[in-house]
Amino acid sequence: MAAGTKDRIMDTTAQLFQRYGYTGTGLKQIVAAANAPFGSIYHHFPNGKVQLGEEVIRRSGEMYRDLFEAIYDASPDVVSATSNFFLGAAETLRQTDYADACPIETVALEVASTNEPLRKATADVFDSWIAAGTERLSEAGIPEAEARRLTIVFLSALEGAFVLCRASKTTEALEVAGTHMAETVRAALP
Amino acid sequence: MAAGTKDRIMDTTAQLFQRYGYTGTGLKQIVAAANAPFGSIYHHFPNGKVQLGEEVIRRSGEMYRDLFEAIYDASPDVVSATSNFFLGAAETLRQTDYADACPIETVALEVASTNEPLRKATADVFDSWIAAGTERLSEAGIPEAEARRLTIVFLSALEGAFVLCRASKTTEALEVAGTHMAETVRAALP
Repeated sequence: MAAGTKDRIMDTTAQLFQRYGYTGTGLKQIVAAANAPFGSIYHHFPNGKVQLGEEVIRRSGEMYRDLFEAIYDASPDVVSATSNFFLGAAETLRQTDYADACPIETVALEVASTNEPLRKATADVFDSWIAAGTERLSEAGIPEAEARRLTIVFLSALEGAFVLCRASKTTEALEVAGTHMAETVRAALP
Repeated sequence: MAAGTKDRIMDTTAQLFQRYGYTGTGLKQIVAAANAPFGSIYHHFPNGKVQLGEEVIRRSGEMYRDLFEAIYDASPDVVSATSNFFLGAAETLRQTDYADACPIETVALEVASTNEPLRKATADVFDSWIAAGTERLSEAGIPEAEARRLTIVFLSALEGAFVLCRASKTTEALEVAGTHMAETVRAALP
């Protein structure tokens, strides 16, 4: 099996999950899009689609957290970082014809009542993002309990704005929510 | 065909969409759960699943807007109404083992990049909710443009909190987002 096949399968699957969801993405579709032999799925993911799904969810979670950290590292303060995160998400949506939003959101809703290992994977990812946001806001001087609450509101507003933006094919909700969250973070600073 | 079959099919479909999504809900599953003959689907929905899906999305949108209006009618002011809406949603989630959240959210994400008539139906529903919220906040004295922005933040926070709550099987995000939104509405009142 060529080196890189596993990564290619995971990259392809992550992209298909965003567009078609977990149920709507088939293994045949994945190997075709990844230009990989069908057997390579079971070679790399012996338990099949659920194992592939779980690894993709967890890896997408890490990559999106890295993006979050990179934007906060590159911004002069947490207020502009918050604004930049929402504006960057809006720009990505426009560039991808409103397909690439949160990498795990569609799957999270699909599996919440139907697949316990995958639900747990999405919950772990959201927890890791909440921890990352709480740390950033705490470092900026906001008390930790308040930093956690603000991060939960930030993440809720972001995930919900993604739904509205993908449905409407506009970026209004991300822009409005981003402005609100940046103002909210500014008001919470000491 | 017995009177009421169409309603029963639509009620059942709405519930299955919340648990399994659009792609994960099959027509055979719908007629079995609705105790309806298979032919009744095509009798009432000649264009099949897409037509049924669109009618269910639009009717769910009206029912959820009616719930929103009822909660605002029953609350003494828009601040407590906002809080009550989030707390009611949290209670419903707990009572349904974290299955019944927004009636169209999972479907909205699934169809956004794959089915234009259904995407449009979800966009129309979100627009109607934004109009209803904007009207309530305007009536409370908030200037209309600001009322619209607040409603978009409200709806974003609600939809995103549903994702976090269903994934984590806790109601923390709805409670935190509800408190934040009630405070935000209070601060915007004249």
